[in-house]
Amino acid sequence: MLSAFPLTPFAGDGTVDERAFTGLIDRLVAAGVDSISPLGSTGSYAYLRPRERARLARLAVEHAAGIPVMVSIGATRTRDVLDLAEDAQKAGVSAVLLAPVSYQPLTADDVYGLYEDVTRELSVPLTVYDNPGTTHFTFTDQLYQAVAALPNVASIKIPGVPADPAAANAHVARLRGLLPAHVTLGVSGDAYGAAGLIAGCDAWYSVIGGTLPGPALTITRAVRAGDTATALAESARLQPLWDLFARHRGSLRVIAVVAEHLGLVTAPALPRPIRGLSGADRAEVIDVVERLGLSGQRGRTA
Amino acid sequence: MLSAFPLTPFAGDGTVDERAFTGLIDRLVAAGVDSISPLGSTGSYAYLRPRERARLARLAVEHAAGIPVMVSIGATRTRDVLDLAEDAQKAGVSAVLLAPVSYQPLTADDVYGLYEDVTRELSVPLTVYDNPGTTHFTFTDQLYQAVAALPNVASIKIPGVPADPAAANAHVARLRGLLPAHVTLGVSGDAYGAAGLIAGCDAWYSVIGGTLPGPALTITRAVRAGDTATALAESARLQPLWDLFARHRGSLRVIAVVAEHLGLVTAPALPRPIRGLSGADRAEVIDVVERLGLSGQRGRTA
Repeated sequence: MLSAFPLTPFAGDGTVDERAFTGLIDRLVAAGVDSISPLGSTGSYAYLRPRERARLARLAVEHAAGIPVMVSIGATRTRDVLDLAEDAQKAGVSAVLLAPVSYQPLTADDVYGLYEDVTRELSVPLTVYDNPGTTHFTFTDQLYQAVAALPNVASIKIPGVPADPAAANAHVARLRGLLPAHVTLGVSGDAYGAAGLIAGCDAWYSVIGGTLPGPALTITRAVRAGDTATALAESARLQPLWDLFARHRGSLRVIAVVAEHLGLVTAPALPRPIRGLSGADRAEVIDVVERLGLSGQRGRTA
Repeated sequence: MLSAFPLTPFAGDGTVDERAFTGLIDRLVAAGVDSISPLGSTGSYAYLRPRERARLARLAVEHAAGIPVMVSIGATRTRDVLDLAEDAQKAGVSAVLLAPVSYQPLTADDVYGLYEDVTRELSVPLTVYDNPGTTHFTFTDQLYQAVAALPNVASIKIPGVPADPAAANAHVARLRGLLPAHVTLGVSGDAYGAAGLIAGCDAWYSVIGGTLPGPALTITRAVRAGDTATALAESARLQPLWDLFARHRGSLRVIAVVAEHLGLVTAPALPRPIRGLSGADRAEVIDVVERLGLSGQRGRTA
């Protein structure tokens, strides 16, 4: 199952470029992804105001043509998370995504309490978003287990799997052993997409899926068909992209250049204070896109 | 110079307890602190909406009786920081405080750009808030130097100094060497208050100063009078408090129990998802407060 995380493109004046945003959604519908997750970390949810998030959720649902839409409801404060959950549900989303966004370091009790307070009020499923690179919070097995037992918890988005296939299998099997059968596991960190799906994850919560759905679907469909060799070969072919993600503090700055180069969004597409890549760093991303033949991924809305 | 950081007390329904908030400000005025910094990390700025922050800044200035007020204008997005700066200036603050609040990890260029964009628009001085425990960003010497050269930068709030007095002196002297003469240095991390002032910091940006101004003023005034022995003795006497701060992921949860125990705020005073200390942890804080004779610090507004 491929869940695609598109960018939220910004215009020069700091407003959201809604035409580019809906263009990205239309493109994912045309590609045939299984689920669309705008307003994830890649969708810069942490940089948007509640009103903007509500509007983008509505636009995404309108353009998703029936494909399930999941949005993040993360915020530092529980009160605001609850308001965002209500906005998202009113917009018609199929699921919500929640990371323990922090300013003050959070304890396990704080995080459990957050999920307890929020799931109690929900009428749609929630995906637990374990993203230590942005939240600086580390889930323990015990906390996974406790949170997964709460009502409406449907999935856990894990940060990756071990590189070694046997270790990846063992990791996913161990996590499954902790969780109720109805709670799915989704891998993130695109370099781990193929490995995570092969190791038995139900979903790939994918950054490239939001901008380059073609290769992400190649990997996901190959695993579903039992053709792990094709999935691993495609992931290995994209290694230069994974290397760039690792070198630039995550995928965001790199995928923004990819989307800009493909003409899907206008540079600079990221919200300040985040500066896009420039100079040699930018040129290197474009070079990788061209060498890998990814600029042929231009969508009908480009 | 003692800059006191009071709590923002919350009421049970999640609104700000404004009566308790202004009571804390009145208490700091009566104690005679040099500067009041509501809406710092201790003041939970990262959990408040812009409208709440604007209102609290106005209330603080109204109650400060001419003592300079500094508020944080931190937010993940530059656009929002600029709006908060305008609100703070309209409220009549004497200075603003800005940390590189992050969700996506920031680069040095991002952070320099943030301070460049914000200082350009300011008409009051700005204190650079280096707080790696909450921002997860580490300033380099080079970045300190570049940011300190921007217009309106008046001070840097550093996270601490080495425990050894000679090393602390060398650390502060080295930082001074990097900065223009008009940029002051303020120490934070209350365990380092006395040591930082003795090592030559101009200010102590103090958490206990906001709730227990008595001992914080004892330390600050002793250093100013050249009586380092008294300052160090008072800081050593408070060591059980510093130990609690270290054990509970920073000072916030501990100082909230202190303020609750003193009757200055109503429990639970912290915003969810942050849960206050309970059970044995809470009892231990109260025990330390009583043993150190700090409950006599109840103010006239208690």
